[in-house]
Amino acid sequence: MTFIVDKLVVLGVGLIGGSLAKACKERGLAREVVAWGRKEVNLQKAVDLGVVDRYELDLAVAVESADVVFIATPTLIAEKMLAQLAPLVGAETIITDGASVKGNLYRAAQRIFGQVPANLVLAHPIAGSEQSGVEAANAELYVNHRVILTPTVETSAQAEETVRQLWQGCGAEVVSMDVDKHDRVLAATSHLPHLLAYSLVDALAQQDCSYEIFDNAAGGFRDFTRIAASDPQMWHDIVLANKEAVLSMMDGFTDQLKVLRQDIAEGNGDDIMASFERAQQARNHFSEILLKRQQGKQ
Amino acid sequence: MTFIVDKLVVLGVGLIGGSLAKACKERGLAREVVAWGRKEVNLQKAVDLGVVDRYELDLAVAVESADVVFIATPTLIAEKMLAQLAPLVGAETIITDGASVKGNLYRAAQRIFGQVPANLVLAHPIAGSEQSGVEAANAELYVNHRVILTPTVETSAQAEETVRQLWQGCGAEVVSMDVDKHDRVLAATSHLPHLLAYSLVDALAQQDCSYEIFDNAAGGFRDFTRIAASDPQMWHDIVLANKEAVLSMMDGFTDQLKVLRQDIAEGNGDDIMASFERAQQARNHFSEILLKRQQGKQ
Repeated sequence: MTFIVDKLVVLGVGLIGGSLAKACKERGLAREVVAWGRKEVNLQKAVDLGVVDRYELDLAVAVESADVVFIATPTLIAEKMLAQLAPLVGAETIITDGASVKGNLYRAAQRIFGQVPANLVLAHPIAGSEQSGVEAANAELYVNHRVILTPTVETSAQAEETVRQLWQGCGAEVVSMDVDKHDRVLAATSHLPHLLAYSLVDALAQQDCSYEIFDNAAGGFRDFTRIAASDPQMWHDIVLANKEAVLSMMDGFTDQLKVLRQDIAEGNGDDIMASFERAQQARNHFSEILLKRQQGKQ
Repeated sequence: MTFIVDKLVVLGVGLIGGSLAKACKERGLAREVVAWGRKEVNLQKAVDLGVVDRYELDLAVAVESADVVFIATPTLIAEKMLAQLAPLVGAETIITDGASVKGNLYRAAQRIFGQVPANLVLAHPIAGSEQSGVEAANAELYVNHRVILTPTVETSAQAEETVRQLWQGCGAEVVSMDVDKHDRVLAATSHLPHLLAYSLVDALAQQDCSYEIFDNAAGGFRDFTRIAASDPQMWHDIVLANKEAVLSMMDGFTDQLKVLRQDIAEGNGDDIMASFERAQQARNHFSEILLKRQQGKQ
């Protein structure tokens, strides 16, 4: 069997790190998969569940002669992991990650390393689950899911290719994108919708008739607010890490809503219709994109 | 077999009217179900599909000696139907409807009839489908769905009871609610979420990177924006018919979002966490309500 990498080290064995580790083990992508983390009970569980081969509690020992180090900690902690890794890993080690925001890590790398290392390949697997923790680690999690790599001018083509092969080996569809564009696109499709869902549910829960509101809501409301059940800490980290793009998308949305509010207040039926029709068309177009993407995979 | 009503007349045989008609026929709730509408081809189709027993093109003939007249036209047209019915139906005929907003019809009835008739029982079945038209009429559409009756001080208890029995006969769970409360609750759970979904998709479609946005969006975005594929004309009618409550809910939401925007801009992590946690708890509470409601039905 030809491994893509010899030694893969996963920092943090939650859903994201654990699933990559398990996929790499099961699919023979790495000769050895080593976990590092703070809670030994979790690391032992990762070994017991066959998610990793072994674990280390000392970061320096864990990453020694690693080919690839995958940072799979929460978003804001990932910045700190970069700082801890800086004195420990050599230039030959590829550092990559799975965090939802890329700009904050890129800027952290600039601060920490002075010059951003050629072997730093920031990446974002767009996959998740309502479950979390090492017990939820799933070797199939990334199959047919998109992974966005955000190489920069500093990035080595070879390092990027290795990370791409790892993800493709896990069954993912890999694309590359500029750091800023990634953060704007994700602010639009993921971060802003989460903020709207959280704000809506929080606003309604504070209404006088909140009992009747939730008691009479139906399936459309359930779909619309599902993401408000997401992990608050994770989304707290994400919106702060991607502050600039998130605020810009919030403002664009608020402006749009303000126009619609005025149209409703003034009874401008034609403008209301035009906005709803544009949205319906765009939504149907999006459905077609999703459908084609799914068909392309089969 | 004991019928609840002798002659049921359905004005408009789309999804809502056609499904009630078909359920009343199949379940033997009405001795005769008559359709009225503008397009004869649709009315004939309703007969061919077994949705109604027969149809009339003349409204006066259709509603003659009707026990119950069900207005199942689009929201804004329902107001006009009330005006057309006023000179045609006697005090013994129950008039009811299935529109999504109740306050505009109540006020229309005040204008049209002077005193709101005792036999006017406004109602709102909270059921729908992505399909529409008489072909989509489904006798099971209302099974286990909620129907909100909005009786007023003028409403006859007997008329309300007849309408309740019809809906219960169709398998629906019937509750009663004040007109204003209904319109506020629906503005919160249904009308505002539709406005947010339409605005979000419309705003994103206008972004420079709209292709990348839709191309990289995943399942959460699909769920969140599903309702933006809804019929623009129907939602245009609803937001204009329920203007006051909709604007009030929009403003409450916008205020909430403004606070969150400031917290993000200023990096107030604790406040962001508190808002997300409140929302997550409320959303989980709502999930339990929905689950209990579904279990109660089984």
